[in-house]
Amino acid sequence: MSKSIFYHAGCPVCVSAEQEIVQLMGSEAVYIVNIGEDRSRINEAEGLGVKSVPALVTPNGNVLHINFGASIEEVKG
Amino acid sequence: MSKSIFYHAGCPVCVSAEQEIVQLMGSEAVYIVNIGEDRSRINEAEGLGVKSVPALVTPNGNVLHINFGASIEEVKG
Repeated sequence: MSKSIFYHAGCPVCVSAEQEIVQLMGSEAVYIVNIGEDRSRINEAEGLGVKSVPALVTPNGNVLHINFGASIEEVKG
Repeated sequence: MSKSIFYHAGCPVCVSAEQEIVQLMGSEAVYIVNIGEDRSRINEAEGLGVKSVPALVTPNGNVLHINFGASIEEVKG
């Protein structure tokens, strides 16, 4: 089974959500990507349909936007 | 370990998110509550901090609001 990808940008909401997601799904089931630090992956996230962070892209390709965090435009800006 | 609770209101976004959550976490790890049908539980959801649906309340009591779905006011109205 392929992994989910959790995109975040290091904000407090993101970190809190990351801890919950890892605890709920297990760390082996999810890649964690900080697009605030690894900005080369912002385009990848956008291409997958990520509109705000934190967001979880599932193995099916669906994007679950979590909480009311930062928009991807804010991470870019 | 106590379970998470997934609150939703039967909307297409909710149903899609529900299927993803159950698949990712396992059906034994999460209760599903449709507050559109079981309206007596709207107050319970609000008391736990649910501001929109779909939302996942974790065993730690954190609320992960998922996607940009219906506000709880819309479910009431």
